[in-house]
Amino acid sequence: MKRPRIAIYPGTFDPVTNGHLDIMKRALCLCDKLIVAVALNPKKNPLFAVEDRVSFIQDAVKKYESIAVHPFDTLLTDYGDSIKASIIVKGLRAVSDFEYELQMGLMNRNLNDKLETVFMIPSQEFSFLSSSFVKEIAKHGGDVSKMVPKAVLKGFAKVQPL
Amino acid sequence: MKRPRIAIYPGTFDPVTNGHLDIMKRALCLCDKLIVAVALNPKKNPLFAVEDRVSFIQDAVKKYESIAVHPFDTLLTDYGDSIKASIIVKGLRAVSDFEYELQMGLMNRNLNDKLETVFMIPSQEFSFLSSSFVKEIAKHGGDVSKMVPKAVLKGFAKVQPL
Amino acid sequence: MKRPRIAIYPGTFDPVTNGHLDIMKRALCLCDKLIVAVALNPKKNPLFAVEDRVSFIQDAVKKYESIAVHPFDTLLTDYGDSIKASIIVKGLRAVSDFEYELQMGLMNRNLNDKLETVFMIPSQEFSFLSSSFVKEIAKHGGDVSKMVPKAVLKGFAKVQPL
Amino acid sequence: MKRPRIAIYPGTFDPVTNGHLDIMKRALCLCDKLIVAVALNPKKNPLFAVEDRVSFIQDAVKKYESIAVHPFDTLLTDYGDSIKASIIVKGLRAVSDFEYELQMGLMNRNLNDKLETVFMIPSQEFSFLSSSFVKEIAKHGGDVSKMVPKAVLKGFAKVQPL
Amino acid sequence: MKRPRIAIYPGTFDPVTNGHLDIMKRALCLCDKLIVAVALNPKKNPLFAVEDRVSFIQDAVKKYESIAVHPFDTLLTDYGDSIKASIIVKGLRAVSDFEYELQMGLMNRNLNDKLETVFMIPSQEFSFLSSSFVKEIAKHGGDVSKMVPKAVLKGFAKVQPL
Amino acid sequence: MKRPRIAIYPGTFDPVTNGHLDIMKRALCLCDKLIVAVALNPKKNPLFAVEDRVSFIQDAVKKYESIAVHPFDTLLTDYGDSIKASIIVKGLRAVSDFEYELQMGLMNRNLNDKLETVFMIPSQEFSFLSSSFVKEIAKHGGDVSKMVPKAVLKGFAKVQPL
Repeated sequence: MKRPRIAIYPGTFDPVTNGHLDIMKRALCLCDKLIVAVALNPKKNPLFAVEDRVSFIQDAVKKYESIAVHPFDTLLTDYGDSIKASIIVKGLRAVSDFEYELQMGLMNRNLNDKLETVFMIPSQEFSFLSSSFVKEIAKHGGDVSKMVPKAVLKGFAKVQPL
Repeated sequence: MKRPRIAIYPGTFDPVTNGHLDIMKRALCLCDKLIVAVALNPKKNPLFAVEDRVSFIQDAVKKYESIAVHPFDTLLTDYGDSIKASIIVKGLRAVSDFEYELQMGLMNRNLNDKLETVFMIPSQEFSFLSSSFVKEIAKHGGDVSKMVPKAVLKGFAKVQPL
Repeated sequence: MKRPRIAIYPGTFDPVTNGHLDIMKRALCLCDKLIVAVALNPKKNPLFAVEDRVSFIQDAVKKYESIAVHPFDTLLTDYGDSIKASIIVKGLRAVSDFEYELQMGLMNRNLNDKLETVFMIPSQEFSFLSSSFVKEIAKHGGDVSKMVPKAVLKGFAKVQPL
Repeated sequence: MKRPRIAIYPGTFDPVTNGHLDIMKRALCLCDKLIVAVALNPKKNPLFAVEDRVSFIQDAVKKYESIAVHPFDTLLTDYGDSIKASIIVKGLRAVSDFEYELQMGLMNRNLNDKLETVFMIPSQEFSFLSSSFVKEIAKHGGDVSKMVPKAVLKGFAKVQPL
Repeated sequence: MKRPRIAIYPGTFDPVTNGHLDIMKRALCLCDKLIVAVALNPKKNPLFAVEDRVSFIQDAVKKYESIAVHPFDTLLTDYGDSIKASIIVKGLRAVSDFEYELQMGLMNRNLNDKLETVFMIPSQEFSFLSSSFVKEIAKHGGDVSKMVPKAVLKGFAKVQPL
Repeated sequence: MKRPRIAIYPGTFDPVTNGHLDIMKRALCLCDKLIVAVALNPKKNPLFAVEDRVSFIQDAVKKYESIAVHPFDTLLTDYGDSIKASIIVKGLRAVSDFEYELQMGLMNRNLNDKLETVFMIPSQEFSFLSSSFVKEIAKHGGDVSKMVPKAVLKGFAKVQPL
């Protein structure tokens, strides 16, 4: 029997946006199992705790059996090894994204040549979305209800009560 | 039983380089069957006939059972449909590649939203390689033996005899 | 009384796309009169005659009184001078567009410092559209009815009959 | 009677440079009134207080009746709405500027589709100028007198006395 | 005694611009001898014959003893070898230039690792200049007298008489 | 007698990587003396003290007589002046590097027009390397022994003991 194809979609997801969710669904065409890997990333000083960031995504993808969500705090390539992944999925919006990701992809290949990085294109309607823009808008009381899933809206309501 | 994952790797391949072959091998981690689709592209006025371009690749990948090579002369998205592919594979070297490919990927999604375009990173040792550089060097009698497979070397010898 | 603000939107428009039309409508917020200036551009060997390219646009913008369409075959900066324009409008999709346009904008400022080049962003739904993609798709019998106005569809039917 | 065209030129302006002033003057060809909107931006930890940043600009543009300078601390699109602006002006120096600005422009259009973002090219002699370079040079005692207006020179003298 | 440092500055120079001349002068800080190498480039269908392109440059740099101008029609790396050069000089204006040149530089290093490619920045006042813009302007009767040296102006007068 | 050509290779080098060392060796073809200038850069909050960053490099280049390593804490252009340098050397990996460096190069030329900035291409095998990636990998216990010289490995062992 063939080994299942396992892909990782890594990120800080502070918080997950509809653009991230779009990439997750598209990535299912590449693999049998998609692991959304949520980086702790304390250096970036995230707005949401890693448990919240994980649960926001779990809530949003609960109907997709082949998607699982886990926190991780090691090198991505070590984490990939430990879960027997063969693919790293990245969503790309812009050229400067691409360059950084290209460098990261080469570095990761250098650390673990059994993990292949692939880049996917988010839906055009999400091409402007980023977690930082969403946080900026929410901070100023703007409407982000079309940009993030429901669980994140509730999360914002908690951290930034009126 | 699950439908096999079929991916297309399209190009003019005039001629195929070791960089293209590197992407083909990497793409096998994403699919059960890889169709290398050689565009006729008469407008680009290719140096090699499409039959030669196909056979150069066939010769180079003959030990890979899951790779097949075919010419095509329709819209890529129609061709993808006809062979039941779900993935388009593209190799990326540089930022300007990426932008053009991003636009093309969005156009192709617009024409056929069941075909997902994914981008892969060629091995660093091939990051400078392109079919046009190879042709330019061969034309001036430079040594391209480390840049293309053997069948292409023979092809060059025919079109540019000493 | 104040001089009306006149803007030029130059291009080859071979043929005009819905993305170009989107920019024309947006540009109306910058000026009292928009002159769509259709370059003859014989060197680019256009598919459609300049008369057709002009009339496709005229047909598509006929309900906008403040838009006029004219062919031109001089330096853009001289043409701008002759119609007393103070603004050149350009639509930008991608980074490589921007760079070329930046260089062109500096050159045009050097030739005529009374004409200011401004860049506008097309609607996201048109961010993949280009005249050359449209021609490529039409050539292969693909459906371009959502990409160009009706007059262009008829134009394609004439030059590429079934 | 026609509604006047109002444009916003937003930024942190920490401090304003001659490059910013160049864009302000050029933007006058697009509008009847230009509002220079100075973002509080406490997160960026600015060197100068927002009152100083506003007054440096006011001093430098006092002879332009159609330019006004105001601080703001809301979403740019809300601020634009409150002052009935229809245009956001941005100066662009480089490709990476452009990409970020393109994403921001699409986000802002998403939040308020009556505000059109336009990009302008600064004069070549200012193409290397940025507020952060200027602060770096001033910090090391370098001569910035050709890079910023007089009021800013005095401002530097206060925060970094010899 | 030390071997003199020889650098090549290659190009089509169809025709040479003041931007090219600016790079030549700046390159003198890197070498004892600068060879301006004029590529025949028949495929690009140049406006000026290679003899003219060479003599335009010779006329413009005649007061610089350490600059010599020669045509060449081999691989650049072979030509560099034959004149014992150790440096290839390239002028860069924009990001897309850089990418292509980076790829070319890696290819050339692959062909001859004794030739190091270095990139230099042209003066800002020439950052918009390119041979093709100059030809386009001259073709339409525009004034290029500040963009090219005198010998080129005479050359244009011959090929495009009033 | 001719003045020796002196070049500066500036950076934070926190820590030096094999990619930096590759550029140092390549830069020797441009100059008689290369000064590696280590910026104090307290704002970047470096992992290693400037003395360590200097000594890591000194250890790695000790067999190159024409390379010297010094800390500096003034404007680069002032430092260049003080050591009679005529060339600033920069290594470039990617497009976004290039843009920032282009802007910096123009700024530095504006401050001191006797210092010419030149860009060099690192070896392909180091194209993914950066000091921050190296620190990230070392922090997570990854193997960086092929990415940095020995002195740096010892340095990491001290700051991040098992």
